[in-house]
Amino acid sequence: MSQTIKKPLVALQKAINKRVVVRLKSDNEYRGKMSNVDSYMNVILENAEEYNNGTLLTNYGKVVIRGNNVLFVLIEENL
Amino acid sequence: MSQTIKKPLVALQKAINKRVVVRLKSDNEYRGKMSNVDSYMNVILENAEEYNNGTLLTNYGKVVIRGNNVLFVLIEENL
Amino acid sequence: MSQTIKKPLVALQKAINKRVVVRLKSDNEYRGKMSNVDSYMNVILENAEEYNNGTLLTNYGKVVIRGNNVLFVLIEENL
Amino acid sequence: MSQTIKKPLVALQKAINKRVVVRLKSDNEYRGKMSNVDSYMNVILENAEEYNNGTLLTNYGKVVIRGNNVLFVLIEENL
Amino acid sequence: MSQTIKKPLVALQKAINKRVVVRLKSDNEYRGKMSNVDSYMNVILENAEEYNNGTLLTNYGKVVIRGNNVLFVLIEENL
Amino acid sequence: MSQTIKKPLVALQKAINKRVVVRLKSDNEYRGKMSNVDSYMNVILENAEEYNNGTLLTNYGKVVIRGNNVLFVLIEENL
Amino acid sequence: MSQTIKKPLVALQKAINKRVVVRLKSDNEYRGKMSNVDSYMNVILENAEEYNNGTLLTNYGKVVIRGNNVLFVLIEENL
Repeated sequence: MSQTIKKPLVALQKAINKRVVVRLKSDNEYRGKMSNVDSYMNVILENAEEYNNGTLLTNYGKVVIRGNNVLFVLIEENL
Repeated sequence: MSQTIKKPLVALQKAINKRVVVRLKSDNEYRGKMSNVDSYMNVILENAEEYNNGTLLTNYGKVVIRGNNVLFVLIEENL
Repeated sequence: MSQTIKKPLVALQKAINKRVVVRLKSDNEYRGKMSNVDSYMNVILENAEEYNNGTLLTNYGKVVIRGNNVLFVLIEENL
Repeated sequence: MSQTIKKPLVALQKAINKRVVVRLKSDNEYRGKMSNVDSYMNVILENAEEYNNGTLLTNYGKVVIRGNNVLFVLIEENL
Repeated sequence: MSQTIKKPLVALQKAINKRVVVRLKSDNEYRGKMSNVDSYMNVILENAEEYNNGTLLTNYGKVVIRGNNVLFVLIEENL
Repeated sequence: MSQTIKKPLVALQKAINKRVVVRLKSDNEYRGKMSNVDSYMNVILENAEEYNNGTLLTNYGKVVIRGNNVLFVLIEENL
Repeated sequence: MSQTIKKPLVALQKAINKRVVVRLKSDNEYRGKMSNVDSYMNVILENAEEYNNGTLLTNYGKVVIRGNNVLFVLIEENL
């Protein structure tokens, strides 16, 4: 019930509308505003940018990432 | 309940009959009109085109993609 | 409820007894008459032909493909 | 209800005691009499022969193949 | 109900205390007395021997193999 | 019921707020304070550091790791 | 009901507090005292040692291994 200790999926829900980095198993990264996420870690990114090894590959509009490909989601205040 | 914040699978449902890009784990992309999609991300594309690294490989008619192969679905207004 | 908008698995059911192309994750393709399909995308093909990169490898009789290997099923009127 | 249109798993059940070819994801093939099969596509083959690219590798007695490895099961009258 | 036609998992249960060969997806083989097996194909082998391409690699005592790695279980009267 | 014998997931729960090392299947390691974990082994790390073969690659803020990528979680008192 | 014939997961439970070797799909081995294990084969090892091809790589404290990575668990009286 603590404010600072949250289950992982709740923490993701709290990050909705923040900017995140979604790293996939393929090592590509997708950066953008996470407009939604569900318990399977399906993620919607707005104005998504695709990076590989720090290099911008492509600019996308809205992208729906299937959760089973996700390695991790990075949530930073200063993104 | 907001109009702008939708769960990922609902957002996909809203994109039915729009043009989308479906990127698979194999890195091939399939572009076409998404005539339907279900919660497993099984997708029907009409007049599908298969691309790899931006190169058009094949024109298809109607293709049913099995959801577990999907990396992401790109929804753009200007596709 | 529209006639033209069908869920992906319903669309596959509607294609029973049509000729289809089943592309597997291994990139091999199997072409034939789809005599049945279930919700897991297990498919029965009759008079199946196995292709790789457009080259005919083998002619089969009746083949039951396990759904988890399926990348997509191509349904074309003119196959 | 038709005699000629059977769901994939029912078609496999009908092939019990027939000779079949079981192709695995590893590309090895196992040929023999299918003495049983279940809905997961676990298969029992009797007098199984293991082939790779048409070359006979080994003769086995009774082998129980775990269904998740199966690519397809080939059912031919003239096997 | 026939004595000679058994479902695959029942056939494995009947082979408890017989010598078997368990082939894994990694192509290693484990030979020994199967002291138990469950419906997931988790297997206990006693006095297990690990082989690769017919070469004995290691002698083990009791080994519990996780079922999802199993390619097939070979049951032979003359093992 | 012993204090010293805990089920694996309970042991992980007990390590919340400790420093851990999360090794992924990709062999990358993520070190940081585990602020939460669930039964699927989804993990939240705070002030996460990404290592490969002992080399620090990147400093992250808060990262939510999807459990299915986890190889193991290392819990040490002296981390 | 026999004492000597145990289901695989029961046999693992009986080995709690014994020394075991956990071989993963990656071929790395982890040796230590198994302080707990659950039905998914999530394992806690105490004083774990990581080996590859018989070479000691690292000494760990307490490690929680995610079950889906396990190839087999070796239980020997003389470990």
